Amino acid sequence: MKSCYLGIDLGGTNFKYGVLDPASGIRTFKTSPIADIAYPDKAVDKISGLIFELSKRYEIKSAGLGVPGLVDFKTGYIHSLTNLRRWKNLHFKKMLEEKVGLPVLIDNDANLAALAEYCLGSGEGSVNMLMVTLGTGVGGGLILNGQIYRGINNAAGEIGHIPLSLNGPLCNCGGRGCLEAYIGNKRLLAYLNRRLKKEKSILNNRSGQIELKDVSIAAQRGDNLSVDFWKYTAGKLAQALIGAVNLLNIDRIVIGGGISDAGPFLIRPLKEYLKCLAMDIQAKNVKIVKARFRGKAGVIGASLLAKHQNNMEA
Amino acid sequence: MKSCYLGIDLGGTNFKYGVLDPASGIRTFKTSPIADIAYPDKAVDKISGLIFELSKRYEIKSAGLGVPGLVDFKTGYIHSLTNLRRWKNLHFKKMLEEKVGLPVLIDNDANLAALAEYCLGSGEGSVNMLMVTLGTGVGGGLILNGQIYRGINNAAGEIGHIPLSLNGPLCNCGGRGCLEAYIGNKRLLAYLNRRLKKEKSILNNRSGQIELKDVSIAAQRGDNLSVDFWKYTAGKLAQALIGAVNLLNIDRIVIGGGISDAGPFLIRPLKEYLKCLAMDIQAKNVKIVKARFRGKAGVIGASLLAKHQNNMEA
Repeated sequence: MKSCYLGIDLGGTNFKYGVLDPASGIRTFKTSPIADIAYPDKAVDKISGLIFELSKRYEIKSAGLGVPGLVDFKTGYIHSLTNLRRWKNLHFKKMLEEKVGLPVLIDNDANLAALAEYCLGSGEGSVNMLMVTLGTGVGGGLILNGQIYRGINNAAGEIGHIPLSLNGPLCNCGGRGCLEAYIGNKRLLAYLNRRLKKEKSILNNRSGQIELKDVSIAAQRGDNLSVDFWKYTAGKLAQALIGAVNLLNIDRIVIGGGISDAGPFLIRPLKEYLKCLAMDIQAKNVKIVKARFRGKAGVIGASLLAKHQNNMEA
Repeated sequence: MKSCYLGIDLGGTNFKYGVLDPASGIRTFKTSPIADIAYPDKAVDKISGLIFELSKRYEIKSAGLGVPGLVDFKTGYIHSLTNLRRWKNLHFKKMLEEKVGLPVLIDNDANLAALAEYCLGSGEGSVNMLMVTLGTGVGGGLILNGQIYRGINNAAGEIGHIPLSLNGPLCNCGGRGCLEAYIGNKRLLAYLNRRLKKEKSILNNRSGQIELKDVSIAAQRGDNLSVDFWKYTAGKLAQALIGAVNLLNIDRIVIGGGISDAGPFLIRPLKEYLKCLAMDIQAKNVKIVKARFRGKAGVIGASLLAKHQNNMEA
């Protein structure tokens, strides 16, 4: 049997898992309803059951777990998770390791998505990488000098909470004018709807609720407002990224999440902004690319975390 | 004789050097006119002469050199320096090592000021530290996980070039609305003078050119405009620092340079901004402090760089 690593990604609506065979990539990728793990005790049972089943086919060396919230990476202590209100103040690493008899590593899911892109995706070959995930929230993960950078409380990477203006709109984090308060999906749609009331666009002929992918399609069809909407989005994103690039002199920015589908309508003006407004050396040496992985990023990152840790201890 | 380390700090108007005795601190601190080292060849002679002289009293193990510009830390190749136009595209580490027969380390002066504060100054005990130097320019240095963080091209740390608004004033770096374009000393004085034309202040009774230290004194005397001026400065600085704190989850910010003399008039509103507007966990775990070292920071940092490298190779 081959040495493999289990990766588990706890999400807001489901949890996913997969087995990484270092020679051939991810195997046995599956998705389960969140109900299976709503209670931490249930989750321990579920995961140990999984490992028991998978052990018939793979030699699982260790497991990685990505969680949507604050976790102390070193101790595996989970402080609190988004949408999983029963997961609070838990020595979850200890709980799980005692049951399954394998090393378990737990990290924030944004960090693990960054790790996946860095090792096997669009971040390959970089040294200092920022991953930005554009969705309801604007998430981020940092790889610095080839390692996940976690900060003093495992809370680093919050590119979505770089303030673009201290007089800007209130943000969910309690701050003001954060990037997320401008380009989180809902904020973007509200901005779009305000403009649609006053301006001409083929989107005005559309019935039903408009989604951001409709704006990408309209931009492809040459709709001026839609093209301009993505420029606006690129401008907001650019301000935060110029700050990160000047401060950190990173060599790769990986952009993931739904609105990265706007493709060139977002990416082209974004690159232009950075070229013109970031510092010369920093701008010349950073590449902006679309993420490779979609829904599997968390599982891949979690299994890579397990593998790396295993290598370090070996 | 005791094992000691030579630290040299190349500045815009002079160069400084000192010998670090790890047991007792900096000894033999001296300042020389910049003319002595305007030509790189002359500088090699000057430094080797220095080492020869100092070797009569100390056993110099290695030397560190801080330079105001872009240098490749690993190879010691100097790309270009501010105010030293003849120092361009030089294998200076090689040039110097061949002459003096000692290991020489070269780094950016802002990084070395940060290292000095981190090891022996106001950054002691922290893990992830940002040093901000407020002067004509707004400089910065980052210590992450206890190491100088240099980025991919040794250009990291540019906190002064976090954009506060992409519609803001042009910056010397070619960007727009950078922190430095608002709170670089000259920009602050221009802002002050615009306000003095329209508002009442005890500064209006003052003859001659007003300096920023006058605004600190006026604030101490209860001058409303002066107090408000420092709040304005704190607000601009806060926006950049909130971004850095949210992104990097650092535990210490060390503020140096001339305008840090405004003391509580600057620091108090700055702390208030971070407490209110940075993310909870990040805000709770970061301390903002004034730098300990003044003009000696570069020399101390350079000698510490030499010492650390020596320890690593030993």
